[in-house]
Amino acid sequence: MKKLSLIGLGLWNEKDITQRALEEIEKADVVYLENYTSKLPGTTKQKLEQETDKKIQLANRKFIEGGKILLNAKSNHVALLVPGDPLIATTHTDIILRAKKQNIKTEIIHNSSIYNAVTETGLQIYKFGKTATVTFWKPNYEPKSFYQTIKQNKERGLHTLLLLDLEKTKDKYLSPQEAIRTLLEIEKQEQQEVFTEETKVIIGSKLGSPKREIKYGKAKEMGKETEIDPPASLIIPGELHPLEEEYLQQFKVNKGDQNN
Amino acid sequence: MKKLSLIGLGLWNEKDITQRALEEIEKADVVYLENYTSKLPGTTKQKLEQETDKKIQLANRKFIEGGKILLNAKSNHVALLVPGDPLIATTHTDIILRAKKQNIKTEIIHNSSIYNAVTETGLQIYKFGKTATVTFWKPNYEPKSFYQTIKQNKERGLHTLLLLDLEKTKDKYLSPQEAIRTLLEIEKQEQQEVFTEETKVIIGSKLGSPKREIKYGKAKEMGKETEIDPPASLIIPGELHPLEEEYLQQFKVNKGDQNN
Repeated sequence: MKKLSLIGLGLWNEKDITQRALEEIEKADVVYLENYTSKLPGTTKQKLEQETDKKIQLANRKFIEGGKILLNAKSNHVALLVPGDPLIATTHTDIILRAKKQNIKTEIIHNSSIYNAVTETGLQIYKFGKTATVTFWKPNYEPKSFYQTIKQNKERGLHTLLLLDLEKTKDKYLSPQEAIRTLLEIEKQEQQEVFTEETKVIIGSKLGSPKREIKYGKAKEMGKETEIDPPASLIIPGELHPLEEEYLQQFKVNKGDQNN
Repeated sequence: MKKLSLIGLGLWNEKDITQRALEEIEKADVVYLENYTSKLPGTTKQKLEQETDKKIQLANRKFIEGGKILLNAKSNHVALLVPGDPLIATTHTDIILRAKKQNIKTEIIHNSSIYNAVTETGLQIYKFGKTATVTFWKPNYEPKSFYQTIKQNKERGLHTLLLLDLEKTKDKYLSPQEAIRTLLEIEKQEQQEVFTEETKVIIGSKLGSPKREIKYGKAKEMGKETEIDPPASLIIPGELHPLEEEYLQQFKVNKGDQNN
């Protein structure tokens, strides 16, 4: 059967697969694992194969965006496994659209993404503004749009979720400390009082997993934090509701500071 | 064991449960299903009992917020099943906080929520601004804050997700058509050109399920649409990327209108 099923794997390991996903994978002729928009930190291809009882092939950007996967789905039921939720990355929406144009049936099976896991900080999801991604700075490439996003969200009292870039060639995520240093550098240049050493930030590491770690404190305190495991996110709180404020207290890095 | 596990059930039926959730439910001494912040549309308590192989008791607001569930978790491992993601509703964040204060161990097992399913419209999740809820209007209770949310998001080119209120006493959701009529009524009063008959809107019904229905058109066209099954959401697009625009074409209610 001609069919392309995009299947979310959730946030941590092979145990985050839903019953619906397992049943769909069972029906598929061929199963691919997308391994370039993000990574499933707590598992391996082998463990996924055991859990699903299927042989799984890795699919890179060229295979997916170059159209080979659609060619395959013209004569087979193809399942594409995607860490997190399958439609968070724009590239997957594009694949669905191209499949429909070629009369290939599609199926979308959701799973948790960072937009679920970020609630573990106690911040209310409906009070988040636009999301931004903090990218690696390189010579002659120093984007600042995420600084403006924080500014605009703050003006409305909204929280900002900052995703941290994945450097594909080096297979390395931007660390939250590097993101903080970049934001402080932009503040020096822009002087708009958007992100100073006194700005409160939340670092969330491995959110949505049993190994989650959350740290809350001023930017100047966070820079000193030791290693934080990827995947991590940075959250800049807007105006805090008393319940949000109370929830965050358990994550404070500097328990002695009453003004924190 | 003293433990409270908050377990998300996802968006549609008993097949959306994750492996991790099933393993946690199996370990629990007692299992409750929360049935007042939202509802799992495609299943029943009986089917959930079959899938989990556990007896499940319904838990109402009084039982959860009144503290009986925490009393129970002081001597048992209590699993609380929640439609969607367990931390979307503020009340569950509050329960986690209160459990921690009473030294009750907690566990959070995520699942998909409307923030995952809304991507089925083709709109990019990171371009959504603040979320708002459209409430039922009653005599002397005519809130307009969601109109201002749309306005502020639009000013920045952002999409707005509008959740539709659940009237608890009548067990009835606000319909998307009623929400559109309310927004047009506010427009008449406010005259801010935020939501007119020409405004493009998306109605998403049963998003995240195999029975999803999506409709895209002008506000004046949507009012005429016949019955739309709950749960439904209303989405007001901001500035559309060409890929978003192209994706939306498949959902147009008025295919003949080239300006749509």
